[in-house]
Amino acid sequence: MADTVKSLAVLGATGSIGTQTLDVVRALPGRFRVAALAAGRNTALLLKQVNEFKPAYVYSSDTSKDIRDKLNSLGCRLISLEEMASHPEVDTVVAATSGTAGLGATLAAVGAGKRVALANKESLVAAGEIIMAAAAKNNARIIPVDSEHSAVFQCLAGETGPPRRIILTASGGPFRTFTPERMAAVTPAQALAHPSWRMGKKVTVDSATLMNKGLEVIEARWLFGVPVENIKVLVHPPSIVHSMVEFADGSVKAQLGRPDMRLPIQYALTYPERLANDRLPALDWANFGDLAFEPPDLERFPCLRLGIEAGKAGGTCPAALSAADEVAVEAFLAGRIRFTDIAAIIEGVLESHQNTLHPTLEQILAAEQAAREIALKLVAGDAG
Amino acid sequence: MADTVKSLAVLGATGSIGTQTLDVVRALPGRFRVAALAAGRNTALLLKQVNEFKPAYVYSSDTSKDIRDKLNSLGCRLISLEEMASHPEVDTVVAATSGTAGLGATLAAVGAGKRVALANKESLVAAGEIIMAAAAKNNARIIPVDSEHSAVFQCLAGETGPPRRIILTASGGPFRTFTPERMAAVTPAQALAHPSWRMGKKVTVDSATLMNKGLEVIEARWLFGVPVENIKVLVHPPSIVHSMVEFADGSVKAQLGRPDMRLPIQYALTYPERLANDRLPALDWANFGDLAFEPPDLERFPCLRLGIEAGKAGGTCPAALSAADEVAVEAFLAGRIRFTDIAAIIEGVLESHQNTLHPTLEQILAAEQAAREIALKLVAGDAG
Repeated sequence: MADTVKSLAVLGATGSIGTQTLDVVRALPGRFRVAALAAGRNTALLLKQVNEFKPAYVYSSDTSKDIRDKLNSLGCRLISLEEMASHPEVDTVVAATSGTAGLGATLAAVGAGKRVALANKESLVAAGEIIMAAAAKNNARIIPVDSEHSAVFQCLAGETGPPRRIILTASGGPFRTFTPERMAAVTPAQALAHPSWRMGKKVTVDSATLMNKGLEVIEARWLFGVPVENIKVLVHPPSIVHSMVEFADGSVKAQLGRPDMRLPIQYALTYPERLANDRLPALDWANFGDLAFEPPDLERFPCLRLGIEAGKAGGTCPAALSAADEVAVEAFLAGRIRFTDIAAIIEGVLESHQNTLHPTLEQILAAEQAAREIALKLVAGDAG
Repeated sequence: MADTVKSLAVLGATGSIGTQTLDVVRALPGRFRVAALAAGRNTALLLKQVNEFKPAYVYSSDTSKDIRDKLNSLGCRLISLEEMASHPEVDTVVAATSGTAGLGATLAAVGAGKRVALANKESLVAAGEIIMAAAAKNNARIIPVDSEHSAVFQCLAGETGPPRRIILTASGGPFRTFTPERMAAVTPAQALAHPSWRMGKKVTVDSATLMNKGLEVIEARWLFGVPVENIKVLVHPPSIVHSMVEFADGSVKAQLGRPDMRLPIQYALTYPERLANDRLPALDWANFGDLAFEPPDLERFPCLRLGIEAGKAGGTCPAALSAADEVAVEAFLAGRIRFTDIAAIIEGVLESHQNTLHPTLEQILAAEQAAREIALKLVAGDAG
């Protein structure tokens, strides 16, 4: 059995996906070895995780002597995110850092031919063309962890042809039925209370604006090679149907499950196998009720429209969109701008963006940087 | 391309599945050759089909000299159903005769290692254990044509482990909301007006009693090796979700589509490929609404309960159930018994049935014969 133990590097170990990944590891003893853990500011939790999982390698963005000494005394070697993602002792990289910071590590993992359980959608949004080309070249397998893309991936198993259409479902977020007036008055606390999913702050706000779905359209475009025109979004408040795929013959497959990220995480780790895990909730067939669907409202949720437009434009537009969104969401959470300003700021950034098609990594990073600067100016203007 | 042309024998060519199979053949020119056609009483349509598809072999249950001469003059050789199903010039057998008469041909096809596009559920219901063992022994691939089982088969593509649970959906039939009183007064014309599917008479009445779903539970048990206890039925009036599969990790896949039998027929013929076919309707994503589900009412629809019970009992019980149902449905369509008597007659037959586990084919045929005789007596009693 020793050779069936998969060796994991968990990047973003103290975040929502990271902690749920470790929960899956705990639930399936003998299946995984945690070879490496990387975390940002939550060093208290990182130290606890290191104590429990005893990884050989650790990355911490807190590089104080105190932390370094503690980690060394626990027997860990401190290495960079990129070293970790491409380390020969690692089979599978869980790429779950948040925001655009995950790009370098994702590229390192893909370049080293790893299996990448990809939860960091920003890297694909910004550099999908480059990442997918590198994955193909190095035989790296990218398995999405996002529930929607995991659903599509699961529906594509065993299929010989490409999908004709992808239908991404969206919960619609907590403000699905809000008027524009109520939407303008939304507080960060309201935006962070997602009706169905337990997620990090950035992605929770993105779910409330539907920007998350816009980013997912772009992510799906790269993961599955389907033009943005053939990717539909349907609002589905119960969050039971995680997405659907339509095939050449008109047949459609959907993947369903209770909204629990541990399911797509586990699938990405065990694919093509599926393992029983008592901690994963099953659908309640005795009380299986109606599944409601409705078209998204692109007027009340302009972020989705902006995401789709940036996806269609391609080039550096998605990177600019994503970077502008990061700045805008941070400003909203800090109480500096209103909820509805998020879309306005992103739209302002995209309007002034000079698109470069088939960009290099440098051009992408430059586009992100430029977008961030403009977004910050727009935030300052709004806030002032 | 010549070796990619599949050679078909269509058994039950003039019935609902048969004519829709030929429609798929017409829509995909160059993909299929109709090597053999078999039909029952509708010789007029059979002659038209022979003229169009020019099969080398034909079976007609009308053996009058006139018909034989006509078929011979069209260049056809007349052979038996079993010869046809096992003929070396045939790759794929579409087993679409109705009722228990299809068993011999199905066994012949499976014994000859053919691909069997199986639309005749009665053969699996009666002799599932024997058919599946013969298929395994002779490397025959049975691909279900029933929309529900095709859905399950499609959801299982690419999966490495067995399903944990199968959820068969049911339209609920035209009398889903009827009171017991209204149900007793149902006429054959009402029972033949199915809300979503275009099918033969027997299966349409079976859909109205939900016996069809009971038979499908037994069929699924054999096709997918899942115990009856792990096969659930959910009523889903829109008939868009054709069935679902739950896996070891709690993930669920569903197959969806417009209710059109040509889709599962085509899939059974082209699997693992899927081919574009303009005649197949696509789901209307712009108007994709709610998908309603509810548990089945086993009190108002006792045929479903009887089907599940016979499936759990196994042995010759399903054969007796199926034969009794054939007699009862025929009597109902002839106006001899009431709609609600169908279940009563089947229950009467099952109560007097002496079950034989792991039966031989002879024991199955004897059980069917005995069930038919008792059912006819009960019909005569009710009718008298």
